[in-house]
Amino acid sequence: MVSDTIQCSGFLAAGVAAGIKKPGVLDLGLIYSDRPATVAGVFTRNQVQAAPVQLTRRRVQVGSARAVIANAGNANCCNGPQGMADAMAVTEQVAEKLRLAQDQVLAASTGVIGAPLPVKVVCQAVPGLVEALHPTGFMQFSRAIMTTDTVPKLVQRKGRIGGRPYSIVAAAKGAGMIRPDMATMLCFICTDLGVCATDLQTCLSHSVDRSLNRLTIDGDTSTNDTVLVMANGASQIELQAGPDLEAFQAVLDDILMDIARRLVRDGEGVTKLVEIKVKGADSDDDAMRVADTVAHSPLVKTAFFGEDANWGRIMCAAGRAGAALDPERIDIYFDHVCMVRNGRGCGPEAEAQVTRVLKQSEFSVTIDLGRGTGSGSMLTCDFSVDYVRINADYRS
Amino acid sequence: MVSDTIQCSGFLAAGVAAGIKKPGVLDLGLIYSDRPATVAGVFTRNQVQAAPVQLTRRRVQVGSARAVIANAGNANCCNGPQGMADAMAVTEQVAEKLRLAQDQVLAASTGVIGAPLPVKVVCQAVPGLVEALHPTGFMQFSRAIMTTDTVPKLVQRKGRIGGRPYSIVAAAKGAGMIRPDMATMLCFICTDLGVCATDLQTCLSHSVDRSLNRLTIDGDTSTNDTVLVMANGASQIELQAGPDLEAFQAVLDDILMDIARRLVRDGEGVTKLVEIKVKGADSDDDAMRVADTVAHSPLVKTAFFGEDANWGRIMCAAGRAGAALDPERIDIYFDHVCMVRNGRGCGPEAEAQVTRVLKQSEFSVTIDLGRGTGSGSMLTCDFSVDYVRINADYRS
Repeated sequence: MVSDTIQCSGFLAAGVAAGIKKPGVLDLGLIYSDRPATVAGVFTRNQVQAAPVQLTRRRVQVGSARAVIANAGNANCCNGPQGMADAMAVTEQVAEKLRLAQDQVLAASTGVIGAPLPVKVVCQAVPGLVEALHPTGFMQFSRAIMTTDTVPKLVQRKGRIGGRPYSIVAAAKGAGMIRPDMATMLCFICTDLGVCATDLQTCLSHSVDRSLNRLTIDGDTSTNDTVLVMANGASQIELQAGPDLEAFQAVLDDILMDIARRLVRDGEGVTKLVEIKVKGADSDDDAMRVADTVAHSPLVKTAFFGEDANWGRIMCAAGRAGAALDPERIDIYFDHVCMVRNGRGCGPEAEAQVTRVLKQSEFSVTIDLGRGTGSGSMLTCDFSVDYVRINADYRS
Repeated sequence: MVSDTIQCSGFLAAGVAAGIKKPGVLDLGLIYSDRPATVAGVFTRNQVQAAPVQLTRRRVQVGSARAVIANAGNANCCNGPQGMADAMAVTEQVAEKLRLAQDQVLAASTGVIGAPLPVKVVCQAVPGLVEALHPTGFMQFSRAIMTTDTVPKLVQRKGRIGGRPYSIVAAAKGAGMIRPDMATMLCFICTDLGVCATDLQTCLSHSVDRSLNRLTIDGDTSTNDTVLVMANGASQIELQAGPDLEAFQAVLDDILMDIARRLVRDGEGVTKLVEIKVKGADSDDDAMRVADTVAHSPLVKTAFFGEDANWGRIMCAAGRAGAALDPERIDIYFDHVCMVRNGRGCGPEAEAQVTRVLKQSEFSVTIDLGRGTGSGSMLTCDFSVDYVRINADYRS
C-alpha cells in the first residue's frame, strides 16, 4: 500500500524534525480533524505516568477532541510540575495555531524518562508542523513517533456501509517495553465514521484487551502508553448499536491485531514472532496465566532465538504459572507438530520436525493442558543478542 | 581457602566423571555421612517436578538420611514413570554399595529436561564413586554438580560452642534459571552439629527465605531445585532451643547468603552483582513487590549491563509493581549517591557520580518510597549479550 493512499476524510496529519532528537530526524507529529470528532482512549496502568498521559487522560473524558500532538525523543515523565506545565504549553501552542480550545488538543510523548522536555524547541516547531498538515501526512506522522522502531507502523482498513465508503487509519510506535496492560506504545486511530464517545470507548477497550494487551516483547510496561481513537463522521455514516457497530468492532479488532503483530515483529532485536496458545485449562484466566508466563520466560525466548526445540523450558514455565495443571496431561505443539504428549517428549523425529518449524520467522506454540475448556493466547518474540545490545546502549 | 581444608567431621564426599556429560567431565557426586544424620529440605514450588525431587521430598519427611547422590547433565524431568524408576534404581545402587536402607539415600539431578536419564551409565559409575569418597572430597563433589556454572561454589564456616569446634560446609550449583521460590539450584549443606530434624527444617526454611529466595538471575524457576541440610552430630555438640540454636541460625543465614551472592555473581553472562533495596513502603510485602519487579526488569538489567544511569527505567518498573506508591515521593540511590529526589532526577553531576558507581562490579540500588516502614531486598544481576548466547545454544 502506497502511503499516499492512506487517508481518512476530514483528517490531516504531519511530521517534522523539531530538533528534540538529532537534527533532521523526524520527532514531532500532529493529527488534526477539520471538524469535531468524538474521542476515546486507553492508557498505561503504570502508577508512574508521564505528564502528557495525565493531561490527555483528563481531556479525553470530555469525549471530543480535534487534534493530537506527539513527540519522540523525550517521554516528559518524572519531571515534576514542570512536566505538566510543559505539556500544557505545547498543547496551548497547537490550540492557538489551529484556533481551537486548548482542551481539544491531546498530547503524547515517548523517549527517555526524566529529561526535561525541550519545550521551546517543540513550541518553535509547531507553526511549521501546522503548515505541513496534509491528508496524506500519516506516513510522516508515523515516522515522527518512532524511537527504536526500525519501520513505521501505519495500517488502513476501508469498507462500505449503506453504500457509503469509510476509512480507518492507525499509526503506532512500539519496539521495546511492550507487555500486556499497555506498553511504550503509542497508537493513534482515526476514522471518518461517526461513533458516539461512549460506543467508541467500549469498542476501543474491547479491541485493546484482545490485541495490544496480549503481546509482550520484554515484559516491561511504560509510563507513556497511550491509545487514542478519533471519529469525525466525515463519511456521513453514523453508527448505531447493532450490526453496523458490531462490524466496526470487528474491523477495529482486526486493525489493532495487525498493529500488535507489527509491534512484536519490530520488537527490539526480534527475529521470531511467536503466538503462544493455551487451551484445555480450567478457566480462561488459568490459560492466560500459562500463556503469559511462557511468553515472558527469558529461557523460552532465548531458546526461540537459538532455534532450539527445548520444550522442557516451556513445561518448566507452565509449571510456575500458578494455574491448575497436571504435568502428565500436557501436550505441546509447534505449529502442527506434536512435540510433547502427556508430559513427555515425542522423540528425535518430532524434534527434527520442530527444529524446521523453529527456523521459520513466525510460528505458534500450542499448550494443551488437557483439563478443561479454558483458552487464551499471547503474542511474543525471541530474546536476542541484539535486544541486549540495543537496550544497554539506549541513551548513549 | 584451600579446598583440602574444607571438611566436616563424619562426612565423606566425592565426584567422578560417569559419562552423562562429555567423557572425562565430572558429572556425578556423592555425599555420605558415616553415622546417622538428621535431614531437612526445601524444594522447588514449580508444579512440574523432576523425579528425584519427588523422591527426595518424600524421603526427607522421615527426618534422617545418610547419603545424597547428585548428577549434572540430565534433569531426569518429564520422563514419566520411567523417570521415577530410574531415580529409584540409582539410589538403590548407592544404598547397596554403602549398605544402607534405600530410603536413607537422597537424590538430585540438574541438566536438560525431557531426556531419559542414562541410568546404566550412572549405576555403573556408583562403585567407583563410593570408592572415591574422602573427607576432602567436597571440592570434587562441587565440580560434579556444575552445569553452566563457571566456578564451583563451596563455602565453609567454623566455630566453637562450649569449647568444641564445629563445621558447616555448603556445596551449590546455580547459574541460569534462578529466581525466588527456588531455582535451578542445588545446594547441599553438611554440619557436624547435632540438630533435631524439626529444628533443622525450621532453620533451613528461615535461611532460604532470606537468601536463596531473594535472588534472581533470569526470573525462571526450575523443576529440580533442591536444598538439603544434613546434621550428623559428629562434633558431639547437640543444639537445643536457645542461644546456641539461634547462633546456628545466624551462621546458616550467613552461609546461604554467601552462596546466594556466589550464585548471582556466576549467573549466566553476569558482569554486575546488584542488590535492590526498597524501604519506606507501606508494608514489607509492598517493598518486596517493588524489589522483585525492579530486579526482574529486562530493561533495568540491560541498563546495568550498559553501565547506563537510566533511572527512569527503575521508576517505571516500580510503578508497575502493584505496590502503593506516589511517584513524587520516591528517592533512588546508587550506593550512596542520590540520583532521584522526590521522583525527579538530580541532574548531570549526580549522573556522573552514578556512572562511576555503575562501573563497579557490585553496587546497590536503594529505592525509598517515602511512605511507611516496610522494607525488603533482592539480589540481582545485569542482563548481558552473553546471557542470550549461553541460553540460545544451551543444548547444542
